[in-house]
Amino acid sequence: MNRFLERRNRLRSLMSGEKGIVIFLGNIDSAAQYRDNAYKWRQDSNWLYYFGIDEPRFAAVLDLESGAETIYADDFGLDDIIWMGPMPSVASLAAGAGVSLSAPYARFDTDVVAALAAGRRVHWLPVSRWYNAVKIGSLVGIAPEDCFSAGKKGCAFASEALVRAVVKMRLVKDEGEIALLDSAAEIGYAMHTCARKGIRPGRIEQEIVGDMEGVTLSYGWGTSFATILTQHGEIFHCHSHENPLEPGKLLLVDAGAESNQHYASDHTRTYPVSGRFSPVQRDIYQVVYECNELAFNLTRPGIAYRDVHIAAARHMLDCLGQLGIVRGDVDEMVADGIAGLFMPHGLGHNMGLDVHDMEDLGENLVGYDSNQMRSPQLGLGSLRMARRLEPGNVITDEPGIYFIPDLIAQWKADGTDGGRVCYDKLERYLDFGGIRLEDDVLVTPDGARRLGSKRLPIAPDEVEQAMAED
Amino acid sequence: MNRFLERRNRLRSLMSGEKGIVIFLGNIDSAAQYRDNAYKWRQDSNWLYYFGIDEPRFAAVLDLESGAETIYADDFGLDDIIWMGPMPSVASLAAGAGVSLSAPYARFDTDVVAALAAGRRVHWLPVSRWYNAVKIGSLVGIAPEDCFSAGKKGCAFASEALVRAVVKMRLVKDEGEIALLDSAAEIGYAMHTCARKGIRPGRIEQEIVGDMEGVTLSYGWGTSFATILTQHGEIFHCHSHENPLEPGKLLLVDAGAESNQHYASDHTRTYPVSGRFSPVQRDIYQVVYECNELAFNLTRPGIAYRDVHIAAARHMLDCLGQLGIVRGDVDEMVADGIAGLFMPHGLGHNMGLDVHDMEDLGENLVGYDSNQMRSPQLGLGSLRMARRLEPGNVITDEPGIYFIPDLIAQWKADGTDGGRVCYDKLERYLDFGGIRLEDDVLVTPDGARRLGSKRLPIAPDEVEQAMAED
Repeated sequence: MNRFLERRNRLRSLMSGEKGIVIFLGNIDSAAQYRDNAYKWRQDSNWLYYFGIDEPRFAAVLDLESGAETIYADDFGLDDIIWMGPMPSVASLAAGAGVSLSAPYARFDTDVVAALAAGRRVHWLPVSRWYNAVKIGSLVGIAPEDCFSAGKKGCAFASEALVRAVVKMRLVKDEGEIALLDSAAEIGYAMHTCARKGIRPGRIEQEIVGDMEGVTLSYGWGTSFATILTQHGEIFHCHSHENPLEPGKLLLVDAGAESNQHYASDHTRTYPVSGRFSPVQRDIYQVVYECNELAFNLTRPGIAYRDVHIAAARHMLDCLGQLGIVRGDVDEMVADGIAGLFMPHGLGHNMGLDVHDMEDLGENLVGYDSNQMRSPQLGLGSLRMARRLEPGNVITDEPGIYFIPDLIAQWKADGTDGGRVCYDKLERYLDFGGIRLEDDVLVTPDGARRLGSKRLPIAPDEVEQAMAED
Repeated sequence: MNRFLERRNRLRSLMSGEKGIVIFLGNIDSAAQYRDNAYKWRQDSNWLYYFGIDEPRFAAVLDLESGAETIYADDFGLDDIIWMGPMPSVASLAAGAGVSLSAPYARFDTDVVAALAAGRRVHWLPVSRWYNAVKIGSLVGIAPEDCFSAGKKGCAFASEALVRAVVKMRLVKDEGEIALLDSAAEIGYAMHTCARKGIRPGRIEQEIVGDMEGVTLSYGWGTSFATILTQHGEIFHCHSHENPLEPGKLLLVDAGAESNQHYASDHTRTYPVSGRFSPVQRDIYQVVYECNELAFNLTRPGIAYRDVHIAAARHMLDCLGQLGIVRGDVDEMVADGIAGLFMPHGLGHNMGLDVHDMEDLGENLVGYDSNQMRSPQLGLGSLRMARRLEPGNVITDEPGIYFIPDLIAQWKADGTDGGRVCYDKLERYLDFGGIRLEDDVLVTPDGARRLGSKRLPIAPDEVEQAMAED
């Protein structure tokens, strides 16, 4: 059976307790400089998952009661053909997605308005873009800003049942998706290898970014998120690349590829610019490496990823205690969230069609089981994936240690650490930067495996050896 | 004097007949997959021109009567610093733009609403993105879709005086801008050279796209528009790159770089995949090449670019007559728009901070003098820049000849050509594709020069020689 039809049938069965219609709104082009100079075309991920049609300005209505499915889009006229080339007819694209009815795009609005006027329930997903917010908002009668899961009303949208059904499906990747994720990981391997080979003191960071992004563009859609390549690893989403590489510094490279089929990869490695770690760098690197390995070894069906995060945090604090940076009982430090000073982010996130999979649907519904609460602690509170794992989950394993001057100063001033931090020692690390090491992991029936056929060098000796051979 | 302040002072003097306030709204990040996974950050071009602050979520109000200027944005808190790194204070960024007052972002709305409530005129520019449309629309009380110049009401927005003043300024590039355009052209030269060197039968088009875009990312912001690299040159904006290169075909490469300072380049070359043109290809190529040269030689202050377009169209028809593809009096064919069958686009467009400069402000206000009407003819009617030229204008010179099967079939069926087209002959070209040759040209006080220090090989012999040496 057509795999998109199969998915929609499953969605419908997961929503069997609901009445009304489900609406899906694909993306339109998104302006960069002006409306007709758009960013690279990217379809909405939910649309891709349920329909697979990688063209702008499509919408669909699924009737939960009658079972009818309609796709709405406009066929190309001669002017479109001159400027954009011939496109298969909407009817044939719809048929490819297993949908037998099609209608002009403008009819989508008419049909949704008619359903609402008839008192029918309209299920829709939180949007990711402003055009979709304007369109959905005007149809269902709410402000555009409230159509985002991060909007003022949070997830108090019309369609939590739909979100829960979609999350349930997309969290568990099927065999076809796993193959696509493996092939995205291959591009990720190639892009990171290109970056590592390009590290030479004196080069500007941006030159390496260009080289590695060129690889993703040659073999995939492009990057799965804005590349982080920085000697300021302590800034998590540092997108400035203007600095020359300096011997003695660490270069953190967090970058991913999106395949032509729109599945993501996401890897991080941290390299010594000069090719060899200093003893101080190696000590911290070893801790992060051990946390990455520990988390991978714990990953298996049945364990909550929140507990894997906590285990990694515990090991980190244990090691930092041995280095004299913290002191005291490790269990108490874990409970008090001291790890958040060093790793103020979560251990990982779901990955699939989006690099943070389904983040637009609301992190709590995506990443948390119904019996889990989000922690208020720094670090653990940023954990995007806390759920009990099941086979088919794809997650990242990305511990890090960072020395963030502003954060350290605030904890010291506020006494947040309750005496556990040895500031004399810690303050020697203020110009250290940060280290993060990230792999993409598939939960298998009996454990876990890393995506892709090859793992990027990660053990400290391996990294130095690879750089010596580059 | 601060160059942004100087520009705003000039803007104010151009608007000396107006009362009220002028508002500028910078961009925010634009979602790719979900709101926090944004496309590469790109500031609004008008904002860059008048304020230069290359950060998201900024706005400004200029009071035309009191002369007061205020910038609205939020300083970073600790959480922003952890995730995005330290940012200079809003006050210091404002000072860098020559603005002495700053206030929180939310105050922008309050101040605009207060001005409207006080009955003051609020001048604003048509927007390019949906977030800006939602925000401006809600402030001034119109629908988001009507905040675009391409909206239902066309340019019937609140602020034609502001648009005219901005267009007057941005159409004429100052020395600093010309230097930035020259350096963007250097990146463009490098990216096109990379593409040409990468042409080998059997390679997938996308591999070459990745290589050339890697160059723009290493040395600039990225591409100034979505790269066109295709063996279907007859499709103007063909963004699919999945085909292997085939000997005997032509590869059209229309691509540009945007510098880190956000100025554009835009060049097109058309290459024989096998390194040598066939006699049929060379004949058509020669015509396009001559049109490009002719247009450049005519370009000087005082001539309307519309007349340059027409001169190129005339030469094209003359040559196509010699090739037996059309017949009849050349002047009559020009008058009847027969050239539109072969070149259904305009000769060129303005270029600057945007590759189609200021297209979001409305093509007619940007590209047409007040005494010029837009032609209804195919081709000439798509001309984006028709104005009488003045020194400092930067335009593209991009004639092309295309054989578009659907268009030819329609003209033949409708008799649009009035007997001028020799379909027997023309139909031998149905699988030819298309050729376009484009340079970026600065209008100088006594003529014109091409941007950048080197011209990409363009004469047919030059191209073959360069490919033989690659």
